[in-house]
Amino acid sequence: MALRGPLSQFLKTQLHACQKSRAHSVAILGAPFSKGQKRRGVEHGPKAIRDAGLVERLSNLDYPVHDFGDLKFQHLEKDEPFMHVPFPRTVGRANKLLAGAVSRAIVAGHTSVMLGGDHSLAIGSVAGHAQHCPDLCLIWVDAHADINTPDTSPSGNLHGQSVAFMLKELQDKMPDIPGFSWMKPFLSSRDLVYIGLRDVDPGEHMILKNLGIQYFSMRDIDRMGIQRVMEVTLDHLLARKQRPIHLSFDIDAFDPSLAPATGTPVNGGLTYREGIYITEEIHNTGLLSAMDLVEVNPVLAASQEAVETTASLAVDVIASSLGQTREGAHGVYQEVPVSKEDTEQLRL
Amino acid sequence: MALRGPLSQFLKTQLHACQKSRAHSVAILGAPFSKGQKRRGVEHGPKAIRDAGLVERLSNLDYPVHDFGDLKFQHLEKDEPFMHVPFPRTVGRANKLLAGAVSRAIVAGHTSVMLGGDHSLAIGSVAGHAQHCPDLCLIWVDAHADINTPDTSPSGNLHGQSVAFMLKELQDKMPDIPGFSWMKPFLSSRDLVYIGLRDVDPGEHMILKNLGIQYFSMRDIDRMGIQRVMEVTLDHLLARKQRPIHLSFDIDAFDPSLAPATGTPVNGGLTYREGIYITEEIHNTGLLSAMDLVEVNPVLAASQEAVETTASLAVDVIASSLGQTREGAHGVYQEVPVSKEDTEQLRL
Amino acid sequence: MALRGPLSQFLKTQLHACQKSRAHSVAILGAPFSKGQKRRGVEHGPKAIRDAGLVERLSNLDYPVHDFGDLKFQHLEKDEPFMHVPFPRTVGRANKLLAGAVSRAIVAGHTSVMLGGDHSLAIGSVAGHAQHCPDLCLIWVDAHADINTPDTSPSGNLHGQSVAFMLKELQDKMPDIPGFSWMKPFLSSRDLVYIGLRDVDPGEHMILKNLGIQYFSMRDIDRMGIQRVMEVTLDHLLARKQRPIHLSFDIDAFDPSLAPATGTPVNGGLTYREGIYITEEIHNTGLLSAMDLVEVNPVLAASQEAVETTASLAVDVIASSLGQTREGAHGVYQEVPVSKEDTEQLRL
Repeated sequence: MALRGPLSQFLKTQLHACQKSRAHSVAILGAPFSKGQKRRGVEHGPKAIRDAGLVERLSNLDYPVHDFGDLKFQHLEKDEPFMHVPFPRTVGRANKLLAGAVSRAIVAGHTSVMLGGDHSLAIGSVAGHAQHCPDLCLIWVDAHADINTPDTSPSGNLHGQSVAFMLKELQDKMPDIPGFSWMKPFLSSRDLVYIGLRDVDPGEHMILKNLGIQYFSMRDIDRMGIQRVMEVTLDHLLARKQRPIHLSFDIDAFDPSLAPATGTPVNGGLTYREGIYITEEIHNTGLLSAMDLVEVNPVLAASQEAVETTASLAVDVIASSLGQTREGAHGVYQEVPVSKEDTEQLRL
Repeated sequence: MALRGPLSQFLKTQLHACQKSRAHSVAILGAPFSKGQKRRGVEHGPKAIRDAGLVERLSNLDYPVHDFGDLKFQHLEKDEPFMHVPFPRTVGRANKLLAGAVSRAIVAGHTSVMLGGDHSLAIGSVAGHAQHCPDLCLIWVDAHADINTPDTSPSGNLHGQSVAFMLKELQDKMPDIPGFSWMKPFLSSRDLVYIGLRDVDPGEHMILKNLGIQYFSMRDIDRMGIQRVMEVTLDHLLARKQRPIHLSFDIDAFDPSLAPATGTPVNGGLTYREGIYITEEIHNTGLLSAMDLVEVNPVLAASQEAVETTASLAVDVIASSLGQTREGAHGVYQEVPVSKEDTEQLRL
Repeated sequence: MALRGPLSQFLKTQLHACQKSRAHSVAILGAPFSKGQKRRGVEHGPKAIRDAGLVERLSNLDYPVHDFGDLKFQHLEKDEPFMHVPFPRTVGRANKLLAGAVSRAIVAGHTSVMLGGDHSLAIGSVAGHAQHCPDLCLIWVDAHADINTPDTSPSGNLHGQSVAFMLKELQDKMPDIPGFSWMKPFLSSRDLVYIGLRDVDPGEHMILKNLGIQYFSMRDIDRMGIQRVMEVTLDHLLARKQRPIHLSFDIDAFDPSLAPATGTPVNGGLTYREGIYITEEIHNTGLLSAMDLVEVNPVLAASQEAVETTASLAVDVIASSLGQTREGAHGVYQEVPVSKEDTEQLRL
């Protein structure tokens, strides 16, 4: 791959001011928010992920981790549906708040890790990231494309429309939804890749095809294998130039047997190993600049064990995105200790 | 692949009268029958599959679905075992009845979907299909080869001998079993491919090897991957000429963790995604003319959840065989709706 | 592959006296031992594996099986820790006893099957095998590398240091641990391959890298596929010359969903089919001379079902290593029986 080596390292340093201090530290931002859809519980996602040991796990890595706690979102009293879209102003305002927080984290040199909450939060997370890093690219790992417009959406829920808010090419298909006047589309459809799709609405399918968006459905993963999928994904996004990656990871990309505590599970998802492989490959680019981990819903699980399984999986995804490896590492050792001659001394 | 495009479309239309109206509609035939083996319960398979929402799921596809209800099978009072084969006349008569029903469905232009019941029913289902489509080919997805003769069968059960009744090459190895005088072998062994084998009796192994039958055991799938297995399967059956496909799918082809409610589970089976991939590839040929979904046994499950899991999987297999896709489709949309200028109008 | 055919058969017969009577019979050696780690229960592994039907399953294969029962290990009263290594003398003495038993089994012409017990027992099992077959190679299937020295080991447990005792290249890194004066390192690091690693300590990672040991982590399996992994493994070990294989299989190589009853489970392990494929490929070399199946711990399981699942998996691994195939075999048949003319006679 063209991404490694001294030249790419040089280019990265020179061209991407937004990344200059990236990976020196991690900022965790909790986003306990659920109004992008109608089921209760996903606002408890950040707590569940933290309870599964997120901060402790990240402390094994090489850089400092700052947990900035949870954002405080306001629930607006007056927020009538727009068309059949519920809570538009509440979702818009929450995302504005989140965008500011993510932007500040990036400016401060952190890799931003947003814990959802529902996937409508990606609007603010990616928008905030893009304020400082306008040339970012987006990898969306999800069972769903979340690219409906209010006109094509069967449910009206905004967590199924997040990507439509971002894309320049959909600007003239999107009505003026109350609550979103603070933002404008900022992403080109060629700077986006989907992985894991298996439940795509008809309007979404039309949009994906019309815009020629690069996506890998589960069928594509079955055909090509995850190794090749990641090769094509990174080549598509990074071959022309090295630039910051935003990873937006919906836990429902995994098979429901692995991630039962989520709102819209779909059979036939990613295996544990495929999910970890995706994040390992993204980490290995050295370009991950911000990520979302969304849709862990502790209330919808059949048991406490199901909650813990799902939240623990979320922790594994985040840790692997940030550099935890399966084959280990030996940063602490320069060479194998020799104890033969002087066992007593080593006992101290 | 050589199967698509205008020329193949032309050839299909010209040469295969038996398919002229195929895929314009689907006929569901319930076959509540269990005398091809000794455990009770598999006769409730059709009800379990329907209860899992079969008809509703198929209504999302493009063509009409006709559920013809359940066939009424007779249980004969006098039906002594032949050698150690139990219920020969009952099984023979049931299959004669089923063969007539499948044949009529095919003649009427339906794609026939037979819901078992045990896998001995494939004798009648494939035979009835072959009455109108003598050049059909057969894809047998199963943990077992079901190709014992009465002489090689360890159990005597006819659901483990179905294929032996069909093959011309085994005619002189098959005794005259009472109940089956209505039929003659009709299939050449080169027109058959197995997928998913992992529990093959010694006599069966001898037959597979002697006749040079193309099969893919789970080991072969591990070696080659499911993508390549389907490529070779369809090439083997269709490269010489396009012709109708009969898919006979035993739910025990799947891993027991996915399909627990079945009579003869064997570890190490197909994943959900492999099973769906097989059916997607078969659908994509445009040549599926009839299928069986057999061996769902609600009585053998440890829980109601296990029944529903298994039956729901059966529905997924059938829907995918008939055209449901994982990456979606946008038949209803010609283009993405524009709501920017005139939101009110679109609300109507 | 270069391993089959008359020439390799000839070379095998000529050059490897230690194998002359190999595969004519199987010796089962139970090793109910747990002092290589601190959790209780793994000493009941041999009983659990036998209760899951080991001997009966192996009786389906072509050669006689001798179950020599369980070895009687002594627990020493006075056995102070060495550095932070617990039970050094007890572990050393148990392995000396086991080494003798394995050596005698090999000399007697058996394929040795050692049932653990914890993985520290591999020290004695491989050492005993090497006494008679000094040119053996070692395939270590495990989530862990078990290659810590007392200085690098975080826990001190000897079941995480087994390989370090064997390797000539680590001789000057190993202190003189009480209980192990009976043995010397006997294996070159190039004669060892790991499969399944996903939890490697920093010191272990340093050793693997420094010695250039060939290993396949789960990430490597995700990248390459299990078919290619086995191809490279066998090529690495056998391309230069045919020689006896020792397979040391830790049940925790499998995913915890398949093998829950074990002491140090790690997510993201081998699938059932990958594990069986590994053993099929090893069997197909015709060179398996001894194996270990370790770390089944019935006490740590959440339910009796979990114990049975794990123990049954262990039986499958052993049976597949010794020749059970997924596509069947027809040793008992020379040809398909013909019953047409003379059914009555066959009924006798």
